[in-house]
Amino acid sequence: MIERVKTGIKGFDNLVEGGFPKNSAILLSGTPATGKTIFALDYLINGAKKFNENGIYITFEEKSENLKNQARQFGWNLDELEKNKKIMIRQISPSEISKNTVKEIIETAKDNKIKRIVIDSLSTLAINVPTTYLNVNEMNEYTIKRFIYAFIDELRLADATVMLISQSIAEDDLSRDNVSEFVCDGIVHLTFESMGGEFSRSLLVRKMRRTKNDEDIHPLEISENGVVVHNIK
Amino acid sequence: MIERVKTGIKGFDNLVEGGFPKNSAILLSGTPATGKTIFALDYLINGAKKFNENGIYITFEEKSENLKNQARQFGWNLDELEKNKKIMIRQISPSEISKNTVKEIIETAKDNKIKRIVIDSLSTLAINVPTTYLNVNEMNEYTIKRFIYAFIDELRLADATVMLISQSIAEDDLSRDNVSEFVCDGIVHLTFESMGGEFSRSLLVRKMRRTKNDEDIHPLEISENGVVVHNIK
Amino acid sequence: MIERVKTGIKGFDNLVEGGFPKNSAILLSGTPATGKTIFALDYLINGAKKFNENGIYITFEEKSENLKNQARQFGWNLDELEKNKKIMIRQISPSEISKNTVKEIIETAKDNKIKRIVIDSLSTLAINVPTTYLNVNEMNEYTIKRFIYAFIDELRLADATVMLISQSIAEDDLSRDNVSEFVCDGIVHLTFESMGGEFSRSLLVRKMRRTKNDEDIHPLEISENGVVVHNIK
Amino acid sequence: MIERVKTGIKGFDNLVEGGFPKNSAILLSGTPATGKTIFALDYLINGAKKFNENGIYITFEEKSENLKNQARQFGWNLDELEKNKKIMIRQISPSEISKNTVKEIIETAKDNKIKRIVIDSLSTLAINVPTTYLNVNEMNEYTIKRFIYAFIDELRLADATVMLISQSIAEDDLSRDNVSEFVCDGIVHLTFESMGGEFSRSLLVRKMRRTKNDEDIHPLEISENGVVVHNIK
Amino acid sequence: MIERVKTGIKGFDNLVEGGFPKNSAILLSGTPATGKTIFALDYLINGAKKFNENGIYITFEEKSENLKNQARQFGWNLDELEKNKKIMIRQISPSEISKNTVKEIIETAKDNKIKRIVIDSLSTLAINVPTTYLNVNEMNEYTIKRFIYAFIDELRLADATVMLISQSIAEDDLSRDNVSEFVCDGIVHLTFESMGGEFSRSLLVRKMRRTKNDEDIHPLEISENGVVVHNIK
Amino acid sequence: MIERVKTGIKGFDNLVEGGFPKNSAILLSGTPATGKTIFALDYLINGAKKFNENGIYITFEEKSENLKNQARQFGWNLDELEKNKKIMIRQISPSEISKNTVKEIIETAKDNKIKRIVIDSLSTLAINVPTTYLNVNEMNEYTIKRFIYAFIDELRLADATVMLISQSIAEDDLSRDNVSEFVCDGIVHLTFESMGGEFSRSLLVRKMRRTKNDEDIHPLEISENGVVVHNIK
Repeated sequence: MIERVKTGIKGFDNLVEGGFPKNSAILLSGTPATGKTIFALDYLINGAKKFNENGIYITFEEKSENLKNQARQFGWNLDELEKNKKIMIRQISPSEISKNTVKEIIETAKDNKIKRIVIDSLSTLAINVPTTYLNVNEMNEYTIKRFIYAFIDELRLADATVMLISQSIAEDDLSRDNVSEFVCDGIVHLTFESMGGEFSRSLLVRKMRRTKNDEDIHPLEISENGVVVHNIK
Repeated sequence: MIERVKTGIKGFDNLVEGGFPKNSAILLSGTPATGKTIFALDYLINGAKKFNENGIYITFEEKSENLKNQARQFGWNLDELEKNKKIMIRQISPSEISKNTVKEIIETAKDNKIKRIVIDSLSTLAINVPTTYLNVNEMNEYTIKRFIYAFIDELRLADATVMLISQSIAEDDLSRDNVSEFVCDGIVHLTFESMGGEFSRSLLVRKMRRTKNDEDIHPLEISENGVVVHNIK
Repeated sequence: MIERVKTGIKGFDNLVEGGFPKNSAILLSGTPATGKTIFALDYLINGAKKFNENGIYITFEEKSENLKNQARQFGWNLDELEKNKKIMIRQISPSEISKNTVKEIIETAKDNKIKRIVIDSLSTLAINVPTTYLNVNEMNEYTIKRFIYAFIDELRLADATVMLISQSIAEDDLSRDNVSEFVCDGIVHLTFESMGGEFSRSLLVRKMRRTKNDEDIHPLEISENGVVVHNIK
Repeated sequence: MIERVKTGIKGFDNLVEGGFPKNSAILLSGTPATGKTIFALDYLINGAKKFNENGIYITFEEKSENLKNQARQFGWNLDELEKNKKIMIRQISPSEISKNTVKEIIETAKDNKIKRIVIDSLSTLAINVPTTYLNVNEMNEYTIKRFIYAFIDELRLADATVMLISQSIAEDDLSRDNVSEFVCDGIVHLTFESMGGEFSRSLLVRKMRRTKNDEDIHPLEISENGVVVHNIK
Repeated sequence: MIERVKTGIKGFDNLVEGGFPKNSAILLSGTPATGKTIFALDYLINGAKKFNENGIYITFEEKSENLKNQARQFGWNLDELEKNKKIMIRQISPSEISKNTVKEIIETAKDNKIKRIVIDSLSTLAINVPTTYLNVNEMNEYTIKRFIYAFIDELRLADATVMLISQSIAEDDLSRDNVSEFVCDGIVHLTFESMGGEFSRSLLVRKMRRTKNDEDIHPLEISENGVVVHNIK
Repeated sequence: MIERVKTGIKGFDNLVEGGFPKNSAILLSGTPATGKTIFALDYLINGAKKFNENGIYITFEEKSENLKNQARQFGWNLDELEKNKKIMIRQISPSEISKNTVKEIIETAKDNKIKRIVIDSLSTLAINVPTTYLNVNEMNEYTIKRFIYAFIDELRLADATVMLISQSIAEDDLSRDNVSEFVCDGIVHLTFESMGGEFSRSLLVRKMRRTKNDEDIHPLEISENGVVVHNIK
């Protein structure tokens, strides 16, 4: 029997047999404005409030303040959760990324009994692979692929269920690293379309190991309380 | 609540909830003759004249004199604004581009209380990545990508709202660096078509973080007073 | 007369003249959720239980515990088979992969009279080629190709029939190494489709040296007792 | 008001508001036999004879003698113009191309009060980038791109209006350097077609900075007095 | 008059004016199971038995034993032919391939008055190019191309007619080396198709220097006595 | 007036205003069996017999003997022409190709008052670029391109009209060097098709500098006296 980690996101858990497989690595991919940050925050908030699981949001991009502002729009008070040591926000500058970044994340997670980790984002990580990584005197697609592989693979030692955000400009863009989709246990893909002035977001579970996952495209709503996944059947 | 920086460009700000998010980095892309320079100048002029925000125009390409001539056609007196320390024009030769270029821009901006920065252009920057950049003995797509990423990312330290011009020959050309669209917070794309001797310019907001941006294509007019974005609904 | 190794998988052996050619290397390829792990376990279980051939499952990916859990769903008790030295499970961390990995596998196989080897997976192996492999100061598609070639080729010294799992994200993805299909003696390809909420798996023997193999696409069922290959004629 | 340099080529100047912007760099591209050499010579001849502007023709390809023979077919006496110091012809062997080539061209131009420069061709320049260029131990598309960029950019110091010939084998060939179209201020593209034994040449202004240029395709005639651009409206 | 080397393969020699040009290098290409090994063995067997030409089969892949087993199915006794010094089988491990491999093959051929050489296969050779080949510190498509070129070209010194097997996974696969087809004097291509459970093999002479070769696709039969090329006209 | 070098090939010279421009470099391209060797020999034979121009055939591929055998089929006695110092045949082994090869060819040409040079082939030259060429520690498409460029360009110093053979496997193959078509003054392309057992060869002049060349595809016949170009109008 696979132990499941409930996201608590409305309408989502029943698509994946009740939740993510415990301690799996989930890729959350999508173009801008598809709701990736809100989805990831909702996952952490629910962990902290409903399932008694501490969480950490690692960001290489946004300032903590921006993140907190976004959270506030959904009535989520990150400051309070931080004070209560339920959720940590850790901002790492891209230029600080090093071989040890993943180890430091794991230690922080262990020291704080963290069970849910969000990484924002793999895309930024891929651009900032440390030049001293490996003893290979070159930066190419293989060294980048390898760094990303090792990063995700080592995160498994954290004894936490990890969500890794991957952002792209267009559905077919070149920022894909060709390894994160392979190494992650699950892929949740968010899309965004606008037609005639109307916006529409949707969600697709593209892969989920050890799970008979739903394979339909579902409308995704960003409500005032967070994300809602709809079922059109 | 996101603080907004009004461009003051006629018809534009209402497409992006009142203005660019404060201190964001905006990519202004387009083929030649789409009006990128005028758009950027209009943004600086309005900052200086209407919103009391000092601006700087960093150019790796045009001579200041050409820029001033162009401005004059719209009744903008850059010499006067320069004298009053409202707008600076800084011409940097491509061969002078170095690892420290971004730091020098930031210092100049801080010393002069500059709140609006225009970089003209990322394309020239990408071709002239310093060869001593990184300790990697090679110039390839990854070192270039990384330089551009770091350049834009470090500019965020300037406490200013930055507009970065990217010029391309054709809509699908190879001068794209595959990273600026990803790292910028917003993308404003200008296009230009001529049919039967008639010219037509248009504008599209392709991305704007923390903003519910308009997603239509809008006619763009270069009037005698500057840029006008029309709404065809 | 070619000596055959029966897989014991229901409906499969008659597609390949009674079994895999003895001591051949078989590639088992497919996207996630196509049943590769179950197929490989079924092959080992049958070896141990019906044909008196010891087996080993080398994994660079899953924890032994996950593997045992999966096996349990089909009524297979790997713990017991391990205790009886019929089946070994060896978990090797990707970061431990070295030039000697293949030699160590061969020694273990010989020491334990192992006749069936499963490698899970070639894909992970390809990403983690040791950087000290060859005296070539570079990691590129040729060094990777060469490592995989040597790995599979040297495994032939093990005096065992080897099944190598190759996993891909999509049917046409970039994780193909362009050499494993060439060097293996046989290729069994599993696919997975879902239409209108219905899942369907299938199997195709794409290559089998020294064998007049069936060339049809066959429905594949994951029953409660293991894999069943159906014949639709 | 932009100062204009009249080409004097029949039917051309009115396509570009009266002439090239003064001191701009114009790319003249086309497959063989499209008339690029004649077009460039016509530009120099008119400068010398009608507009009192000295010119220089830098060739990495043709022998001066071939060039003079071609000119003679149009009644142009280059020998005489050379004697009167109105037009210089400078033949540089591809193997002599060095980092200093552009500096030497600029000095020659200044010493001889030259206002019109023709470079024949960028294509040959790109193939013969000096191997000691940059401190990068490698010749690749980026070092080539950079050399061409710097070459064109530095030529702006010559205080002359420059025409750079780029020749290609086919409309879509691989000899494009992906940077000259970007860095030049204008692009004049010549094409050539033969149908049923009939030849037809045409001209298109693809780009012209600081100019509202015509955007139609125009028939191009090589008459006995030089080039004629026709207007089919 | 070109001297011809009869293959003795039923139905083949009349497609190429009586046989291969003496001392030419012939590429025998095809996907697995197309009959390349049988075709090559048939060529050697006929040389030994009918035309009094000694042969050697160099294999980097199969064990001699497998080869002999395959031969036995067609009533060919390689052991006897080996004993009589009519046919040699030389197995070279891929890891033993070196700069001197070709020289050793030539010496062996000369010492044993060998007139027919089979190389099985070029594909394996290409993957195992020695890393110390050339003084170029890199393994890339050009060093591989060059090794294969030199290997085939030097084999011409053997005073023998050489057949080089090239195997590919699919008709359009990436294992092609882009040089063997160019440097060989002839190309015989075998294909294999199965439709509705029926197998069909065919043969096409794609190139044969100094020969007016047939250019049709011919059915190929693997009979119990060896290969038969049919003529459907 | 351009001086013309008559090929003397039946039906050809009138396609190019009477002959090749004197001292030009002509690329003769085509797949195998298109008649390139015969065309080149015919050009040399006619020079020697009809126009009193000595010729040399440089081959990196065929043995002189093969070449003489081919010539004999057309009644051409190369031995006699060699004895009379009208035509030289020089066989250079690919492994002997060095930086000085072109200089040695030029000296030989000058010493023997040679006016027609055939190089067979550029394709072999491109594969065998000397590794010590340039001070660039790498063999890649740019070093190859550069070597071929310099080779052809330096040959112009020979005071002879040069024909360079380029052979390819297929019309669209990868052996094209992307520079020879650009640097040569003319391109004569031969093709070969077989339909329904009937062969058909054809010729197309794809480029000829300083020449208003015919642009039609012409049937090419290999008669018993040499090449004949037909005119189907």
